[in-house]
Order: sequence, then structure tokens, then C-alpha cells
Amino acid sequence: MSFSALWGSLLPVGLDDGTGGYRRFSWTLADAACRSWFIEEAAVRSLRTYTDRNGNLWGWWESEGTDGAAGARGAIVTGSHLDSVPDGGAYDGPLGIVSAFAAIDMLREQGCRPARPVAVAAFTEEEGARFGVACLGSRLLTGLTDPAKAQALTDRGGKTLAAAMAAAGYDPAGIGPDESLLAGIDAYVELHIEQGRALADLGAAVGLASGIWPHGRWRLTFTGRADHAGTTRLADRHDPMLPAAAVVLAAREAAAEHGGLATVGRLTAEPGGANAICSRVTAWLDARAPDEPRLQAVVDQVLAAAGAAAAAHAVDLDFRQESVTPAVEFDATLRDRLAGALAARGISAPVLATGAGHDAGVLSARVPAAMLFVRNPSGVSHSPAEHAEEADCLAGVAALAAVLEDLACR
Amino acid sequence: MSFSALWGSLLPVGLDDGTGGYRRFSWTLADAACRSWFIEEAAVRSLRTYTDRNGNLWGWWESEGTDGAAGARGAIVTGSHLDSVPDGGAYDGPLGIVSAFAAIDMLREQGCRPARPVAVAAFTEEEGARFGVACLGSRLLTGLTDPAKAQALTDRGGKTLAAAMAAAGYDPAGIGPDESLLAGIDAYVELHIEQGRALADLGAAVGLASGIWPHGRWRLTFTGRADHAGTTRLADRHDPMLPAAAVVLAAREAAAEHGGLATVGRLTAEPGGANAICSRVTAWLDARAPDEPRLQAVVDQVLAAAGAAAAAHAVDLDFRQESVTPAVEFDATLRDRLAGALAARGISAPVLATGAGHDAGVLSARVPAAMLFVRNPSGVSHSPAEHAEEADCLAGVAALAAVLEDLACR
Repeated sequence: MSFSALWGSLLPVGLDDGTGGYRRFSWTLADAACRSWFIEEAAVRSLRTYTDRNGNLWGWWESEGTDGAAGARGAIVTGSHLDSVPDGGAYDGPLGIVSAFAAIDMLREQGCRPARPVAVAAFTEEEGARFGVACLGSRLLTGLTDPAKAQALTDRGGKTLAAAMAAAGYDPAGIGPDESLLAGIDAYVELHIEQGRALADLGAAVGLASGIWPHGRWRLTFTGRADHAGTTRLADRHDPMLPAAAVVLAAREAAAEHGGLATVGRLTAEPGGANAICSRVTAWLDARAPDEPRLQAVVDQVLAAAGAAAAAHAVDLDFRQESVTPAVEFDATLRDRLAGALAARGISAPVLATGAGHDAGVLSARVPAAMLFVRNPSGVSHSPAEHAEEADCLAGVAALAAVLEDLACR
Repeated sequence: MSFSALWGSLLPVGLDDGTGGYRRFSWTLADAACRSWFIEEAAVRSLRTYTDRNGNLWGWWESEGTDGAAGARGAIVTGSHLDSVPDGGAYDGPLGIVSAFAAIDMLREQGCRPARPVAVAAFTEEEGARFGVACLGSRLLTGLTDPAKAQALTDRGGKTLAAAMAAAGYDPAGIGPDESLLAGIDAYVELHIEQGRALADLGAAVGLASGIWPHGRWRLTFTGRADHAGTTRLADRHDPMLPAAAVVLAAREAAAEHGGLATVGRLTAEPGGANAICSRVTAWLDARAPDEPRLQAVVDQVLAAAGAAAAAHAVDLDFRQESVTPAVEFDATLRDRLAGALAARGISAPVLATGAGHDAGVLSARVPAAMLFVRNPSGVSHSPAEHAEEADCLAGVAALAAVLEDLACR
């Protein structure tokens, strides 16, 4: 199957006609359709499918002399995720999965027979769009997130992860680390659309990741008092919208000052009547920086502003860290090997750092991990406007195939 | 039936167990339950019930020699509304209806026989909580809102008023002004819980309204570009959350400067992913002031700030006036008559202006209208914490009965 046919077969799943964006949230119907698509594409390729205890999907390419899954040793894994942010683009995640299948097709056409197991993996809830913790599937796999805490995570409707998994037919009691699965993996290589314009500026179709900025998500809940917007004197108000607005502006200022990034993309106003002062406003701070001291400086500055504004408006502030990911430096030996394999085929791949978290970053704590980026001409990401040219996607597939051939077929 | 039993019979309807607030939105199941309650209480009192073309409910007390509804002439109407803001309190609206029924009970016990029709009215969608236009039922009745525009109003789920009415079993094609109904009304008296602390400060259980501040609702939609929170450089962003936050702060500042009130109580962030820059943020501005020039000054200042912030962040701004209500001065002759009737029974009722809109304000353009306020010890309104003491509610019933006796039974 050609790359474009394979790509096209996934495109309709979870697409929102109104926004033109994707709503592929974990353990929903759209997610189930993505899983069916994965299992079918794996089956077409005679890859043995396996759903691990955390709901991550695996498709194992086992040739003679190799033995996948629980008994696998020395496996080379490639993949990404199929879930999306709300109204996300088509590429973030799926490009890595589609390219993995396409690279296996290419290797088979080239007559390559792997000397060790190769697997395509699709990790669950990478975006954290439903349950608030990014890279949840790989975090659970590696033991970074506590299973009991994960089971109790809730979506916007108050449904727990445990209930959502159970409703989708999976056993939430089984989630948690899987040492035997991890022990069988020698390397993880994730292909991903670039989420900035660095490759476009450099004129390169593909790149390699050096590392991931430290980053995290913090939830700030301002609790005031609901009151009538038309009769409550300004001096009598406890309006939580005002400190929340101050935080939005403080986040931008702190990021600029410390050379990082800070964003409030999610904010809820309750009860949300136009003629009532809010009782509660919740703002989520996403913050990233080139290093941990700078990240801490950004967060400290935003928190100080939040505390001061809450006090000024006689509003309570509750502040919680929802997730934090330390700086990731990808394995230099693996990256050099990838660079060499690409160079041998005449592919020049600049090395970039990124502010975006990835399952590869989580897995890198336990197995050598690397990332391949595919050029994004506009740099737009987490948006229906996210795009990569087909020629660049094909260059990505060729690069991934070259890397897998080098790692697994020799 | 005692006031407290009557009051208690309505209390459970539309109560949200989670917030302790009311969610009585027009044309929902909770609204249908409120309507059933009204019809039953009217029937118990042998009041002839009538639902007008706009869904407003009427319960007519017609004694010998009077003739209600379409043929009514010289009617005295009292009432209020049964709908609530999201998570509103129990008193705002319902106190006026319950007090109306209780006042009729009291008049009958006193042997009063009305010389003209008396009606209890419950106006639909007073809060505008579902379809965004406050006092929609009385606005349609008096022709202040265009029926075609009203039919097309949408709730948060995108359902039109026409569809919601039809789903509730009412004909949306019939909405619009009702001159014959209006022509039959000589006066409208609305009893309402005070939404500030003026009566508490003055030590009075009941008060009379002088007028209503001019006020309105404006919708500001900021459209930027969804993008990845972790990879998009600050300089490349079109983040609509930033100008929206600036508007929240500018509204408070403008209100303080011009002696008015301005509030953002409703704000939506789309798509609302914590790790994505928003594509669109919508903020609703509620603004009020003692007079129209000052209201205009507040709105102009907020709009100027919105425009400047949108430009600074390369975000589009769309700005719409959703509703505006000019200053209301209630009929002085009617107010003086009410004051006289109260004074004759030894009831002292201070005269107050209010920043809150009411159906009485809308109706005052067409019929002499007046308002009675009942003391609110904390001044809290549009909140589950809204409260009035039972003794003050009973004083309100007695005052309303005195007024109705004076207007209708002589």
C-alpha cells in the first residue's frame, strides 16, 4: 500500500466537520476506531498485535530467529501516538505510526529481513487531552505515573480513567509498569512532525532531536463568590476572573523575561453566566524552558503574580502541579548511529531541541531513544492548519526505513 | 397554604446537588417542572391559567364583573420569573411568584373581592441564561425583541430558541408582541429580593424601586490561531487569550473610573487544550452605570482596550452588542400610590435604584410598573448563598397584599 493510501485511510477517523480538527481522545469511539485501524494495518502486514496492560498498541514484526512481545529481546521499536489535542491536526502522532508501517513495507520491498524483533507502537493518551497527564501510556509503562493515581484521573465530565477504560472494554486494574516489556527493547525511535519552523528555516526535510526542554502543566484554581453582576459593588466583590486574567498576562511576561514559553490554553469560568460574577475560575499554565532553572523561574514568577492578584481581589488560590517532565537529552550514541545511517544514504538531518514532550522523552529514561522530525513549513501545530508536504513525509519514511534497516536488519 | 409550605414546594425543582445552586433554564425539564408547579398552584386557587404566545404564564383571578385574559380590562398584574442563572439562588424570581400566590391567599382570607382582574405572571427567560437575551419573555410580549431574531437565538449547544420551544411542545412561530394582552393591563407590580445590601443598611424589610440603571451585554470574540504551546515562539503567536485577559482587567478599571459596574462572568476558550494556544476566546461583558453617558463611557473604554490588545497580539476582534436596556424610571404616580398604601399599614419602604434588569423595567415602557424589594441581608445574589429571612419574606407578602388590595379591591 502506498504511503498516501495508508495516510488517507486514517484521515477520516475522529475528524470534526465543524472545526476541521481532530478529536481523537483516549477511550472514546474515535479512539476505538483508531485502534481498529492500527490492528487492521498490523494484520495486513502480518505483524502480531498486542495491547499492553496500559492500552498501548504494539505490532510485532518477528522473522525467523526472533521472538516478540513478552519474550522479545533486543527489539527495535518505532511509533508514536494516535490521540489528538482538541481540534488538533492530522500529523501530530499519526505521522509516526503511518510512517512506521510504510517503512516496514519499504524494508520488505527491499528484501530486508530483521535480525531482531521490530515493533510499531502506538502509545495511549500522549496529549493528555482527556485526563490531563501527557504521555500517560508511556508514563504508566515506565512506572513514572502511579497506577492508582492514574485510575482516579478524571475527564471534563468527571469520568475516571478507570471507568473510561472499563467502558471501552479494557481492565483498568492492570495498568502500571511492565518491566518485562521494557527489558526486551533495545531502542525506541519516534518519527514526528516538527512543531516549529526550524527545519523549514534550515531547508531540510528531516531532522534529529537533541533533547526536550523541561516542561510541565500547573492548574490554578481561583475561588471567589458568585454574585450579581448588576448589583454587587466593586468593593464587595470576590471575582476570581480578575486574578485569572492577571495570570494569563503574567505567564506571557515571565516567559519573555526568562527565554521560555508559557501559555494558558485552557480556562474554565464557573458558573459562567454573563450576568453573574464567577464563583470559580480555573486556568491551566503550560510552561517550558531551555533548562530547569529557567523553567522554575517562569513558574515562580507566574505563581507570585497569581498569589498577589488573588489576595488583591480577596479570592482563594489553589495551585497544583499536574505534570512535570525534566529536561531530556536523547542518547547521543543512538543519535550518532542514526545520523550515520542517514548520511550513508545522503540524507542530511540537522539536530534540533524541542519544547514539546513526547513518549520518546519518557521512554528515554529507560531505553535509548531517538527522534526523527519531518519538516513543517508553517510551524503550526495543535491546529487543523498543521501540515507537512507529501514529499517530506516520504523523505521521513525513507529516513525511518534507513534507520530501522541499520538497527535491525544487520 | 402557608407561605413556607408554598415556598418549600418549589425549592427542590432544578436544584443541582453538586453546587447547591439552581439550573432552571427556559424550555428544559426543570423549566417544565416549574411550569407544572405554577399551573398547579394557580389551579388550587381557582386562577384561570393561560400561557401566552411567548410562553409567559398567567394565572387570572376573575371575580364577578371582571373578565380576564384577552378580554381583560384594567387588570392589576403581579409576578416575576421562575428561571435562574446557572447555579443561581432560590429567591431571584421565585420569591415574586410565591409571594403573589401568598398575597392572593391573604386577600381572600381578608374577604377582599377584586373589582378588577388580578393576575399572577411568570415571565420566560428573564435571566437570559440559556439564549443570551435577558427578559426575553417580556421583551417579546412588548415588541422590544424581533420575533425572527429571537427564534434564531441559540443556546450553548447550538440549539435555537425555536427548536427548544418546539421540543417543549410550544409553537415558536407564534412568538411576538401581544397588544390585546398588554392593553388589558393597568399596572404591573413585581416583588423581588433585593440584589444588594441597601435595605439591610437602612434597616428596612421592604423597599420600592425608583428605577433601573441602563445596562447591557456585549460579546467580544477574539480569533487567533491554534498552535502548540510548547514549540511556537512567542513572536509567532496569535494567542486570543491574551487580549481577552486584558479585557477582563480593563472592564474592572473602566467601571471604577466611571462609577459603574462591569463584569466578565462568561468566558470560553476554544479548543481549550492545556498544551495548545487557543484558536478563539469569547468574553461577555456585562456593563451598567447610573446613566447612559457613563454606561457608554465604560463600554467605549473597554472596547478601546480590547482593540488595542487584539492588535498587539495580531488577533481579530469581533464585537457585538447582545442586549441593551436604557435607563428605566418607574411610574412616579404608581410608586407614590404604593408608598401611600404601605404607609397606611405602617410599612416604611425606602426608595432605591438598582443595577439589575427586571421584566418590570421592560413592561414599564408600556404599562405603569413598580417594584417591591425584600431585604437581602448579605446582598449576595446570583449565587446559592442568596438568602432572605422568612420574616422579611412574610413582610414582603403583606406589603404586596396591601398594594394589590389598594389597587384592585376598591
